[in-house]
Amino acid sequence: MRAVTVVEGDLHWTDHPDPEPADTELLVAVRAAGLNAADLLQRRGFYPAPPGFPADIPGMELAGEVLAVGARVTRFAPGDRVMALVGGGAQAELALVDETAALAVPDAVSWAEAGGFVEVYATAHDALFRQCDLTLGDRVLVTGAAGGVGTAAVQLAALAGARVVASVRRPELRPALVELGAVEALDPDEAPSRGPFDVALELVGAASLPAVLGALATGGAVAIIGVGGGARVEVDLLTLMGRRARISGATLRARSLLEKAAVIAAVEAGVVPHLASGRLQVPLAATFPMDEAPAAYDRFGAGGKLGKIVLLAPD
Amino acid sequence: MRAVTVVEGDLHWTDHPDPEPADTELLVAVRAAGLNAADLLQRRGFYPAPPGFPADIPGMELAGEVLAVGARVTRFAPGDRVMALVGGGAQAELALVDETAALAVPDAVSWAEAGGFVEVYATAHDALFRQCDLTLGDRVLVTGAAGGVGTAAVQLAALAGARVVASVRRPELRPALVELGAVEALDPDEAPSRGPFDVALELVGAASLPAVLGALATGGAVAIIGVGGGARVEVDLLTLMGRRARISGATLRARSLLEKAAVIAAVEAGVVPHLASGRLQVPLAATFPMDEAPAAYDRFGAGGKLGKIVLLAPD
Repeated sequence: MRAVTVVEGDLHWTDHPDPEPADTELLVAVRAAGLNAADLLQRRGFYPAPPGFPADIPGMELAGEVLAVGARVTRFAPGDRVMALVGGGAQAELALVDETAALAVPDAVSWAEAGGFVEVYATAHDALFRQCDLTLGDRVLVTGAAGGVGTAAVQLAALAGARVVASVRRPELRPALVELGAVEALDPDEAPSRGPFDVALELVGAASLPAVLGALATGGAVAIIGVGGGARVEVDLLTLMGRRARISGATLRARSLLEKAAVIAAVEAGVVPHLASGRLQVPLAATFPMDEAPAAYDRFGAGGKLGKIVLLAPD
Repeated sequence: MRAVTVVEGDLHWTDHPDPEPADTELLVAVRAAGLNAADLLQRRGFYPAPPGFPADIPGMELAGEVLAVGARVTRFAPGDRVMALVGGGAQAELALVDETAALAVPDAVSWAEAGGFVEVYATAHDALFRQCDLTLGDRVLVTGAAGGVGTAAVQLAALAGARVVASVRRPELRPALVELGAVEALDPDEAPSRGPFDVALELVGAASLPAVLGALATGGAVAIIGVGGGARVEVDLLTLMGRRARISGATLRARSLLEKAAVIAAVEAGVVPHLASGRLQVPLAATFPMDEAPAAYDRFGAGGKLGKIVLLAPD
């Protein structure tokens, strides 16, 4: 098989041995694989894949057709359309997926959408509902809302009966966030004034967090999801105490298979039905052929996109 | 009645009108009132009492005898021994207490112990079990463990089947923490090396927090309770994400009566039975007559005490 391959910070499209599925694994002919910020970090030598996943092939989410299954697989069969979370190795013609990390792709969903669905929706769902205990009527702020996780979070929170304010630097991207369910989409300097917020998803990091903390309601919760705007930030503990607030952080990649299975089960129960019904979308900023990965990564790095950039495998 | 009274940063023992109990209030002849760090802040003009409580009489916890009750009081009667959380005004001969903020004092518990029980045990219980979801077998770190909240937290966590490490600057105070249930009591520079910790109570603040965050286990939780060692601290958000950790903060004082009633109900159910049985103690560092409040405040501010400083009302 061929795969996007990181060699000393450069991306190549090179041959690798075909993988073979172990007991609980699916061998998937990848049709589409979404890009995430973590892939750009991995290219630069940070954020390596966890043990058990290809070290030099990036990609944490994919969609494709099951080609073969391990002896103990029970949920999927060859020919099934699946989308999945992997620790790495998604940006390839073939990938191995533990069946507990895979979801059936609803009929109406395209390969490109399915390939860009799992990582961002799992991340947004975990942050909103597990870390921040989002509930009906909550006032929610999503910073850096135009990206993959941001557009997923805005939709999920609105669908769950929250009042969502989206914070987006580029004015031209704001109307789309309102289309996706935000009551307002505003400049980051203005959005905190629309608080107080019960829940905030921080997709920017240090440059944004102090204003977000200051806009929290009593009992508010902030989940840190992105640190593109810096990772080190001064926090005023008295603000945290006075607001009875909490700050949490998480990543999906480092979790165990069992933990990922729990995340995937929650997404299957709570999110996939709304994707199937068309109430949730995967906005696609752009697709690129997989062998043009460098252009796709450059586009991702340039920012200013709405939704996902997805790599498509060659026919 | 006479009361400790803050006048331009000084403490006096002066006359005030006797208070009268409203519908759901108890009029209490105060026998003992514990000192807390917040009282020292209030004396300096910070952390004012919330609306509805005396602005110039400090004190957030007390124990005493019920003298009279409002028309709608159902849980207590004149002559009952009670201990209670108040928004202010505890350091006086008489105080008003909403009956939902009061607890019966177990027979074996002295006035001094009862007067220093509620604020610290409610704070420690809320932090350990509500904010940090402490459970059997958790590895717990308590920093600044020799104070009132610290000694309460060490005892509560140990009683709940956690493995508690206490961090205490002064070597001479460490053996008492082991007596109270810590598996080890160590210097703050050494304690984080005993991690990883599932739960940490941060009673020191900025000077201690970075090392505590670095010692958290995956999924760990830190509750900020004290900021004597500084309130502004640089946090590495990548550490928080990598550990899937959370930082929370809270105070009791600003909560509504209804919220305080929930805290008190949790303490009544979970903590008071263990105080009554003698398994939990209120270590007393010193008691002072109420009219010698300045000496008591100075003693509190000097640090290096084990447990509580409690003011005793004149006979």
